[in-house]
Amino acid sequence: MSALQRDPDRGFPFPAEQRSIAREIYGETKDLPLICMHGHVEPEVFADDIPFADPAQLLIVPDHYVFRMLASQGIEPARLGVPRLDGGPVETDSRKIWRTFCENWKLFRGTPSRYWLEHELVEVFGVDLAPSAETADTIYDQIAECVADPEFRPRALLDRFNIEVISTTDSATSDLRHHAKLAADGLGRRVFPTFRPDAVAYLDRPTWRADIEDLAKLTAIDTTTYDGFLGALRSRRAAFVAAGARATDHGHLLADTTPMEVSAARELYGRVLGGAEPSQAEVDAFAANMLYQMAEMSCEDGLVMQIHPGVLRNHNTAIWETYGADKGYDIPIQTEFTHALRPMLDRFGTDPRFRVILFTVDETVYSRELAPMAGTYPSVRLGAPWWFLDSPEGMRRFREFATETAGFYNTSGFVDDTRAFASIPARHDLFRRVDAGYLARLVLEHRLRLDEAVETAIDFTYNLPKESYPRPS
Amino acid sequence: MSALQRDPDRGFPFPAEQRSIAREIYGETKDLPLICMHGHVEPEVFADDIPFADPAQLLIVPDHYVFRMLASQGIEPARLGVPRLDGGPVETDSRKIWRTFCENWKLFRGTPSRYWLEHELVEVFGVDLAPSAETADTIYDQIAECVADPEFRPRALLDRFNIEVISTTDSATSDLRHHAKLAADGLGRRVFPTFRPDAVAYLDRPTWRADIEDLAKLTAIDTTTYDGFLGALRSRRAAFVAAGARATDHGHLLADTTPMEVSAARELYGRVLGGAEPSQAEVDAFAANMLYQMAEMSCEDGLVMQIHPGVLRNHNTAIWETYGADKGYDIPIQTEFTHALRPMLDRFGTDPRFRVILFTVDETVYSRELAPMAGTYPSVRLGAPWWFLDSPEGMRRFREFATETAGFYNTSGFVDDTRAFASIPARHDLFRRVDAGYLARLVLEHRLRLDEAVETAIDFTYNLPKESYPRPS
Amino acid sequence: MSALQRDPDRGFPFPAEQRSIAREIYGETKDLPLICMHGHVEPEVFADDIPFADPAQLLIVPDHYVFRMLASQGIEPARLGVPRLDGGPVETDSRKIWRTFCENWKLFRGTPSRYWLEHELVEVFGVDLAPSAETADTIYDQIAECVADPEFRPRALLDRFNIEVISTTDSATSDLRHHAKLAADGLGRRVFPTFRPDAVAYLDRPTWRADIEDLAKLTAIDTTTYDGFLGALRSRRAAFVAAGARATDHGHLLADTTPMEVSAARELYGRVLGGAEPSQAEVDAFAANMLYQMAEMSCEDGLVMQIHPGVLRNHNTAIWETYGADKGYDIPIQTEFTHALRPMLDRFGTDPRFRVILFTVDETVYSRELAPMAGTYPSVRLGAPWWFLDSPEGMRRFREFATETAGFYNTSGFVDDTRAFASIPARHDLFRRVDAGYLARLVLEHRLRLDEAVETAIDFTYNLPKESYPRPS
Repeated sequence: MSALQRDPDRGFPFPAEQRSIAREIYGETKDLPLICMHGHVEPEVFADDIPFADPAQLLIVPDHYVFRMLASQGIEPARLGVPRLDGGPVETDSRKIWRTFCENWKLFRGTPSRYWLEHELVEVFGVDLAPSAETADTIYDQIAECVADPEFRPRALLDRFNIEVISTTDSATSDLRHHAKLAADGLGRRVFPTFRPDAVAYLDRPTWRADIEDLAKLTAIDTTTYDGFLGALRSRRAAFVAAGARATDHGHLLADTTPMEVSAARELYGRVLGGAEPSQAEVDAFAANMLYQMAEMSCEDGLVMQIHPGVLRNHNTAIWETYGADKGYDIPIQTEFTHALRPMLDRFGTDPRFRVILFTVDETVYSRELAPMAGTYPSVRLGAPWWFLDSPEGMRRFREFATETAGFYNTSGFVDDTRAFASIPARHDLFRRVDAGYLARLVLEHRLRLDEAVETAIDFTYNLPKESYPRPS
Repeated sequence: MSALQRDPDRGFPFPAEQRSIAREIYGETKDLPLICMHGHVEPEVFADDIPFADPAQLLIVPDHYVFRMLASQGIEPARLGVPRLDGGPVETDSRKIWRTFCENWKLFRGTPSRYWLEHELVEVFGVDLAPSAETADTIYDQIAECVADPEFRPRALLDRFNIEVISTTDSATSDLRHHAKLAADGLGRRVFPTFRPDAVAYLDRPTWRADIEDLAKLTAIDTTTYDGFLGALRSRRAAFVAAGARATDHGHLLADTTPMEVSAARELYGRVLGGAEPSQAEVDAFAANMLYQMAEMSCEDGLVMQIHPGVLRNHNTAIWETYGADKGYDIPIQTEFTHALRPMLDRFGTDPRFRVILFTVDETVYSRELAPMAGTYPSVRLGAPWWFLDSPEGMRRFREFATETAGFYNTSGFVDDTRAFASIPARHDLFRRVDAGYLARLVLEHRLRLDEAVETAIDFTYNLPKESYPRPS
Repeated sequence: MSALQRDPDRGFPFPAEQRSIAREIYGETKDLPLICMHGHVEPEVFADDIPFADPAQLLIVPDHYVFRMLASQGIEPARLGVPRLDGGPVETDSRKIWRTFCENWKLFRGTPSRYWLEHELVEVFGVDLAPSAETADTIYDQIAECVADPEFRPRALLDRFNIEVISTTDSATSDLRHHAKLAADGLGRRVFPTFRPDAVAYLDRPTWRADIEDLAKLTAIDTTTYDGFLGALRSRRAAFVAAGARATDHGHLLADTTPMEVSAARELYGRVLGGAEPSQAEVDAFAANMLYQMAEMSCEDGLVMQIHPGVLRNHNTAIWETYGADKGYDIPIQTEFTHALRPMLDRFGTDPRFRVILFTVDETVYSRELAPMAGTYPSVRLGAPWWFLDSPEGMRRFREFATETAGFYNTSGFVDDTRAFASIPARHDLFRRVDAGYLARLVLEHRLRLDEAVETAIDFTYNLPKESYPRPS
């Protein structure tokens, strides 16, 4: 049985001089509160303070980073308890699922999931054994005991994790009742929603027409016309602002922001609502138009716009039909920003009311497109490394590719982005460590003074995310 | 006269702590047998145990890595003895060719060719002088003496190089007679063929109709119809399996795998066989269809599928017409995988009978496309760094870009890929050294334990290539 | 008040062994003359030996690297004294502009601008205080005193900066009178023009028809036909050669070099000259054709061809209409070279009279496209890292991505590219330092001997740019 690695220097670069300065920088950021301006923890988790279930249901079943790596070696999602949409049989023995995970611990070598899981096991649950066939049951029991304890309920963990604020992500048709309950319980400024209208921006979503009807019901605005639809979105955005929202979020396939002629948008909207099937080109054009419209509304209501483009969702049809979305089969594509964002930035890019934060899973655009745009447009901020890039090498490359042209202060500061609540402290901690290492190198190369590096680290950790996502005034 | 560099620490990173751990890891892999699951050494080299010719004919004339670098400085291929297709005059004085190479040794600074050549000179031929105008003749004589020795014949070198298995690459129309001879000589499990049907997958190859006829002759199947053509390919694949093949190989320009409607494929096949000129779009569509068909046949017969896409061959017409293919004028293009592989992976990607190994010379897809696919699809493995990327910096970037999302165990393990037989040990050795350095960094950053790093290094070197390319059962 | 960083080891990597070797290599290059084969300093600066104005007009107003970073944080160009095209009011108090810059010094953390500015402040103006609100006036006064001194006039600085040769960039319609004056003053071999015909290669430039008329006037050749137009360009090129030019320069959006059918080119040229509006496709086709024509003329007259593709100029219309071009809103796009250059290289790529130097702001092409082409075509050289990539991390990546396939000797050597005359020594110095660090690593990894590294550094700094841009014979 091996002990879990929990070296105090984990995540730092190894050369002694650099490590020593990294430690010093990290020492100034490690205890700062967590600012969580974007994520996918469900609001009911906090609203109802739902206790976590067993270790497998907590750490494996809901985390596609984890079960995808097991699936990649032939362990089907059903064997890991991932529910089937048809309610068909899947593994329900959580201890067995946990064992499968522990037996395959070596698959996580070299991945950020390993770092996060180790951090969670040690820091959150006090486990000090490395997962393996022989330690599986012991670890299972120890975590199970923890999650039965009221101190491990979500609201208690908000304090324990030192989370100052956390945002959920909510569809345009959300009634925000969980957030109303949170507000009633005095947590409204700590946990707040983000407005995500993708489902109504894509004309080919199976749920599109139902969502349009829901929009009408929620807003008492007639959404049978395109103008009514835009009005209803304005109304929903106002409701989100009232519920404390600071931002919108847009998970488009492409970054295109070309507006449609109003007459063409009206015609297309009406035609599809009337039952016509839109072409792929029409779907894409309408989605692009919606980004432009959302930018215009952001100028009006002050919600910060976040764009997360470039992921082809549900790459495998059988997996999607069996298990649904977010099951590890989302694969990035090359993403073009310079042409794509031009219509939006040409119109709103220098407007002092506008703020847009750009995320990518295509690293090639850091130095080529995003840093040059963030380094000149006052409205543009470059988001923190996202998803597959939220990793030690990904973070380092983000800094190395983007900083020289974007500078430090045209970035969003650190933003985590996860469904796995218990992994949030690990993600912030890893970034603080890796970034301290990067900054230490700049100090040693006489590119920054140490006091500047410390200030920059604190800004990126705490001040920049707060300043990048201001509360609409 | 300078001595050749042969420092025992060559290829390792220099920081002392990292080098020390790298040495330790390398110590566990350096003597492992060479698993050579892909390459381009001609089968007759082993079948007939042909002695090597002189130094120029061994190390320069057949190696486009070497003569391209001389050509790039204006030394025409003909001056280096590269044969002209028309039989026109080229330099035949091997000693003179060798001198030209030695005089231009400085052009190889910073290239992997230099590392390989140094390794070959020192380890294979016992040379200890750096090539230069003044050392050219001495070195020439020393190598010439070696190659005259029976211990330097190919079969003897298989043992001396510690090559456990080696694969050749053979066209669909190969009669496999060299492999039959190897089998008769008891070498059939050590040297085996790989099925490469590119020549019949591209309707615009000048040899296409002749190859279709050859297919018919070899299989006694009527290939005048598309269905007969597919049947003949099935038959050839079976013959390759019988000859010990483990894999197919596909050197397509694009990674597209979209299947054609059967009726459309039949019509196009018949039309082109009847003498019609296919359009470029038709050529591409048929090639894409063939990848899909090959995937289907791999499910049936168990041959592992290798895809090597994204190289525009014969970029310069004059060079191609004068000297033929593989003369250094193959230039990579940007390669899209996410959309391109979707049809194939949507159909076969989770089929337990299917295995596909993806290679690229476009590094941008490591973190963006290939690692996410390899990290979730059970059938997909990410191939080792290929061609221009089979180099110290290329290997390091491969690990840094791919590992965090793909993990170590969704890769093929090390695969060399060369026509230059004598360079094979150098290539394996370089990878083992560079990878040991990478793993040592992970150990020092507390991301892997040393015992895990050693196991991972051994797996990548020896176990993973064997496991990634199983013998069809 | 902080002192400016001027550590003698700035720009070197920090590990002690590597730094020590880097120092040794840099010691051999630091005093070499500056070879400035490409840039944008106006020729009248040297012809008329114009004194520099005040610190703001010298270092901020003309330097889009500097004012873009301030603009990105909401400080409008007008507040920094950037002139409006309509002559509207902008800040004219240079001391105030300077203060705004100094107060925002922290925005430059991590950027190469900071390095260059520090170098200029210390080495050129003897300033030893870091810019800040409290030091702004003191620094202003010190620089103002310098620029009033005749020793700070441009011709004096040519000597002080150790500039052996420097090229300006001049439109095809330039009358070259400033260069005539320089020649008359004995500076004709030291300061020479570069031929940049972009304005007449793009049919949609507002100035196109006026430029065509100017060409006719300058050459006394009738440019109302396409053949006359080509003839006039030949004539202008001859005039540039006579004025000492060594190269042409082409800042195209795309790298496409496809020639047009002569008849189609004639028809299009005549139609547009007759007042017709060309389509975007026609504009692009004509621009591509012009690259091909320029390559052909380079074979005739020996001017080296430089291509700087892939930047979408004037991304924001309002900024462009208010302030004009070159105001920080030039954003790179993905750039394809393999297909794009094929027509030109297929025709001229192995012609011993032809030389083309390829620059890029899309790093993804280094290992994928440019290094493979430079590593085989005798005519192709890979240019030094350009624009956003002329930075410590950009230079390091250039070496790491390109060298293994291109080698060192298929590159242009160092080429600066700036409008900011006073920053030229800083740019050369930074490259020499960063490159020494890279070469030191190769030495420590036993990939180069130290004497080879020193020779390579000297070659890249001094010999290669001279050899890459020969004087047409």
